[in-house]
Amino acid sequence: MISRLHDPSERGFASDNYAGVHPEILSAIAVANEGHQPAYGADVYTARLQEVFQRHFGETARAYPVFNGTGANVIGLQSMTDRWSAVVCAATAHINVDECGAPEKVAGLKLLGVPTPDGRLTPELIDREAWGWGDEHRAQPKVVSITQSTELGTLYTAEEIAAICAHAHERGMLVHLDGSRLANAAAALDLPLRAFTADVGVDVLSFGGTKNGLLLGEAVVVLNPDAVRGPVFLRKAAMQLSSKMRFVSAQFLALLEGDLWLRNASHSNAMARRLAEAVRTVPGVEIVRPVQANAVFAMIPPDVAGRLRKRFRFYTWDERTGEVRWMCSFDTTEEDVDAFAAALAEEMRA
Amino acid sequence: MISRLHDPSERGFASDNYAGVHPEILSAIAVANEGHQPAYGADVYTARLQEVFQRHFGETARAYPVFNGTGANVIGLQSMTDRWSAVVCAATAHINVDECGAPEKVAGLKLLGVPTPDGRLTPELIDREAWGWGDEHRAQPKVVSITQSTELGTLYTAEEIAAICAHAHERGMLVHLDGSRLANAAAALDLPLRAFTADVGVDVLSFGGTKNGLLLGEAVVVLNPDAVRGPVFLRKAAMQLSSKMRFVSAQFLALLEGDLWLRNASHSNAMARRLAEAVRTVPGVEIVRPVQANAVFAMIPPDVAGRLRKRFRFYTWDERTGEVRWMCSFDTTEEDVDAFAAALAEEMRA
Amino acid sequence: MISRLHDPSERGFASDNYAGVHPEILSAIAVANEGHQPAYGADVYTARLQEVFQRHFGETARAYPVFNGTGANVIGLQSMTDRWSAVVCAATAHINVDECGAPEKVAGLKLLGVPTPDGRLTPELIDREAWGWGDEHRAQPKVVSITQSTELGTLYTAEEIAAICAHAHERGMLVHLDGSRLANAAAALDLPLRAFTADVGVDVLSFGGTKNGLLLGEAVVVLNPDAVRGPVFLRKAAMQLSSKMRFVSAQFLALLEGDLWLRNASHSNAMARRLAEAVRTVPGVEIVRPVQANAVFAMIPPDVAGRLRKRFRFYTWDERTGEVRWMCSFDTTEEDVDAFAAALAEEMRA
Amino acid sequence: MISRLHDPSERGFASDNYAGVHPEILSAIAVANEGHQPAYGADVYTARLQEVFQRHFGETARAYPVFNGTGANVIGLQSMTDRWSAVVCAATAHINVDECGAPEKVAGLKLLGVPTPDGRLTPELIDREAWGWGDEHRAQPKVVSITQSTELGTLYTAEEIAAICAHAHERGMLVHLDGSRLANAAAALDLPLRAFTADVGVDVLSFGGTKNGLLLGEAVVVLNPDAVRGPVFLRKAAMQLSSKMRFVSAQFLALLEGDLWLRNASHSNAMARRLAEAVRTVPGVEIVRPVQANAVFAMIPPDVAGRLRKRFRFYTWDERTGEVRWMCSFDTTEEDVDAFAAALAEEMRA
Repeated sequence: MISRLHDPSERGFASDNYAGVHPEILSAIAVANEGHQPAYGADVYTARLQEVFQRHFGETARAYPVFNGTGANVIGLQSMTDRWSAVVCAATAHINVDECGAPEKVAGLKLLGVPTPDGRLTPELIDREAWGWGDEHRAQPKVVSITQSTELGTLYTAEEIAAICAHAHERGMLVHLDGSRLANAAAALDLPLRAFTADVGVDVLSFGGTKNGLLLGEAVVVLNPDAVRGPVFLRKAAMQLSSKMRFVSAQFLALLEGDLWLRNASHSNAMARRLAEAVRTVPGVEIVRPVQANAVFAMIPPDVAGRLRKRFRFYTWDERTGEVRWMCSFDTTEEDVDAFAAALAEEMRA
Repeated sequence: MISRLHDPSERGFASDNYAGVHPEILSAIAVANEGHQPAYGADVYTARLQEVFQRHFGETARAYPVFNGTGANVIGLQSMTDRWSAVVCAATAHINVDECGAPEKVAGLKLLGVPTPDGRLTPELIDREAWGWGDEHRAQPKVVSITQSTELGTLYTAEEIAAICAHAHERGMLVHLDGSRLANAAAALDLPLRAFTADVGVDVLSFGGTKNGLLLGEAVVVLNPDAVRGPVFLRKAAMQLSSKMRFVSAQFLALLEGDLWLRNASHSNAMARRLAEAVRTVPGVEIVRPVQANAVFAMIPPDVAGRLRKRFRFYTWDERTGEVRWMCSFDTTEEDVDAFAAALAEEMRA
Repeated sequence: MISRLHDPSERGFASDNYAGVHPEILSAIAVANEGHQPAYGADVYTARLQEVFQRHFGETARAYPVFNGTGANVIGLQSMTDRWSAVVCAATAHINVDECGAPEKVAGLKLLGVPTPDGRLTPELIDREAWGWGDEHRAQPKVVSITQSTELGTLYTAEEIAAICAHAHERGMLVHLDGSRLANAAAALDLPLRAFTADVGVDVLSFGGTKNGLLLGEAVVVLNPDAVRGPVFLRKAAMQLSSKMRFVSAQFLALLEGDLWLRNASHSNAMARRLAEAVRTVPGVEIVRPVQANAVFAMIPPDVAGRLRKRFRFYTWDERTGEVRWMCSFDTTEEDVDAFAAALAEEMRA
Repeated sequence: MISRLHDPSERGFASDNYAGVHPEILSAIAVANEGHQPAYGADVYTARLQEVFQRHFGETARAYPVFNGTGANVIGLQSMTDRWSAVVCAATAHINVDECGAPEKVAGLKLLGVPTPDGRLTPELIDREAWGWGDEHRAQPKVVSITQSTELGTLYTAEEIAAICAHAHERGMLVHLDGSRLANAAAALDLPLRAFTADVGVDVLSFGGTKNGLLLGEAVVVLNPDAVRGPVFLRKAAMQLSSKMRFVSAQFLALLEGDLWLRNASHSNAMARRLAEAVRTVPGVEIVRPVQANAVFAMIPPDVAGRLRKRFRFYTWDERTGEVRWMCSFDTTEEDVDAFAAALAEEMRA
């Protein structure tokens, strides 16, 4: 029996990845345990998972559980592209800035990052880089990749995603959606998951579980089967095929069979709103982006950030400007928020 | 709460990957849960893990937890090689036959597979492909990769590994060891883990947890720090960096702090020996390889295999010859073995 | 004006790459010179080249001039494969042993090399590695690649290639042919180029010019347009798109519009036969492979090889056995052959 | 003997790649012809070439002849980087926009393109992307790549390059220079080649021959031997190793032993200046960038561009703005320039 090495009462605002596993998820792992089940996804939990994903995303949906978000993104993008393809994305997209070049290195893709005001692409912004088809000197734009909710805590409406999909499809491109926080988006939009994905033309998405209470688990979800080639082989070659997959799938079942996905996401969104409200009136604190999901971006003086960080973990988002990010998770409590807001107010006065 | 979809009393001999999670491992996950811990390996469990690995492998050892064996192998090999390198391995090596070309595709490596009688390389066999240094037309042999215990259930002695390491090092090559069943090897050899790895010259190894009772978890273990470049970056770019790493590390702590690793491995080895003994005398059954770890390879008539498979899961290892593989795991019971042997005897008589 | 730095009377038997440029090829470069022509293949010489290749290989043929043989092979193979594909080839294939791992590194392909007695695959040998379709753990065999004439100076008959193509196609695989010495094969078989390629089912081939008198130039020739995707983009991304392509294409026109390709190849083949005849009777010299194209493989004592090499350049083919290779080229003269044979006889007596 | 298929009197302003081979270069090929020379760079012309490059770039310089500019860039960059590296470059750099993603696909590199006003980086602009060292989530900036003269026809002064090199080196980065038009830069700056490369800290450069009168030929020139690993192997694995290298090297000897490189470059620069002067006063024509090398960028009405293009080939540089590019080459004559300027004036009036 190992000893607990950490203080379980400590919680901060650094990342929804700093949170642990939701108790219902942990139970699901135990339920799936004992006895033998075929490895590599031939188990009964992974079979059932297909039905659950189809319930959420429509009959053509097919889910491929993987380990992490970078894996899900790189497999999804590879399945949609040729060796000479390029991917149009926001300059701030996770695939562009936070995956150590995995899309380039593992998939050989060229990312065409477009500067955006708020992490969101538009048809007009896409056209900055979506051109040059047929010109062999240019890596061929084949996929538009958007993130929902975005890395900047902002949201696309269903209509905005529909417009992007129509625009891309008209030009022979496909649409990939990085949904590591898709549940937060659904909660914030108050829409079923399919309403702003499958129903408006998204071809493939990464569905995030880890940031919403799983121990570990993401899924490549193919919504348009005609958009992909070889996801099963790409998953293995990308080293993302879990042998004891039943434990990844059982977690997803616990998340998605009932409403745990929505409860967790709604809660973390609510905590972010509470946090924004609580600090908005503190003199000297500026909330610098719309708080639409579970992230709050703010400007505070660097020395305040430094002192506050000794009490609660959080990240400086932009070293140049000093902008900070506060992230809420499924286990953030109202007390956490209030204590943090009080501490911020205190440090601002100091 | 999800429902149990499988019959936990069912166990077979298909793979040590078909087994579930050892109860002590599941407890460790719960211990590490709750509250917040820094993501991506900056947590206290991963920090402690370094000490534990150093206890087993020596002071210079540094462990990088990853998701799966293919990931561990590809990251380890990349860290030891240049873009123009080749890896000498047994033709039957997992990296050569069971990773969907990930070493070639993700790492750009050329594998130089050498046919072997029993899955084991020797200095002489290595020399079949270890040549041509300085010739730009030949991918440059830089690493010898061996598997312990091998894919064929055989073992290297510590002396044999020492000889391979000396041979490789004399030629300017490094030695990688795929240890997805390293614990089984240690149990079978009755040696500490380091005695046939770090102490005899292995530079980098993949340490397997999944097949020995973990939910999921392997580790790249660098024994010789001078042998590698950039493992931290390679892990991320290979999409094997776990965000909630505390849960991978806590499992490894439970495995390695005490003797769980050895108990599990000794048990699965013992079950394989029991199985071999039980079936060896059944007329018409031929054990075709030495039973040195937790695998039994046998020849049985194809129709018998077909009927037997309806009662117990196992794999045909070689479609051409009909050779079958029976794998024991930490949760295989004596009753499982005896029931299987009885069923085999029955089907042989049918 | 630069000075001649070499002795133009020196000729050896090291490689058909050691020879220079045929005078008619040099003239063609001058003809295509002066004035401006669109770059990257939009010139009139490259346009005309399509007609010439179609005359030789049939109406569906499409030629993509490139710089060298490794480039032609890697582009051809990429155009026929998916990211998770494998290529079955002879263990001695140039792609497997002499391209510094470019197929693995640039294309991410896994090569499944099969040992052969004489560099030639057969359906039976192909089946050693052509299996496992649908199993995500195995890089999927998609292409059979053969070399004609082979790296060992041997030839496939048209019927043998037809049998390989039928075998591959029945299994859903495609056939690639490395024809860096295709002209030598045609000359030796006394068949039109298409008779043992397009007409018997080869899908894509590399057509060699450099070894048959060009300054530089090879072509990816797509015989079956349904077999490939994106050759134009792959050529550019593989860094094999010539800007002043008119000069590569004009060389090919000079080679292929008339019978220069056949004259050169027939001559080098004849010189190899002459050489084999001349040395066959020298006591102690053993011709160890059939002399079917422009290469002679022989066993001679190492000390003889050492002394002889001071007078004529040639390669030791196999360091282990001491087997040597003597290669004839378009500019090998009867006097060269006779002088070499005499020198060999002399050194054997010494 | 092939027929001339083109009109050698036709010349345009599309690209310095549309020009042919300078007569002195063609002669050099003939001089190097006949007899046998070792392949793959072991010939006497390639040996001599090292001395010539060292004369121009200093004693530590080592040149690796390759086929084309994309090849030179990708090999150079690979030799300077690790598998997890990133390259900071201008957004308009050839490596970023005109190589079909080869740096990403072949080398696995992430390019960090920075918008610039005129194709030139500065220390300040470099810092927009040169950050994040040690953070495994970010592809690690390792190389700054600049182009001289730039893709926009502009020049860095020697002092500006020195400042960039100092800035990069201070941060542990290396400097790569894409010199496909390095001769034009030297001519324009009136400086020896080394004065703004080796002498100010450039580590590796691509030296262009094709655009300055060669049939084909570029060179990776390593100025700082400590900056690279494995260029010989990388060249082969990148499929850029010429078998009959003597013919590439002989061309470079003809270019660089005397002053042909400078004559050609000075002439094309002079023609660009003459063109700019001639059209600057045509009403409605606007020269939009400094004319510092052999390119002229201008705004003219699209309909005028359309009509003018029927008489002289040239490219629209930016489809959005209608900006056109007129490129002069070593064989551009004063009459060509004057005729073009007259035609432009005529079409503007039409």
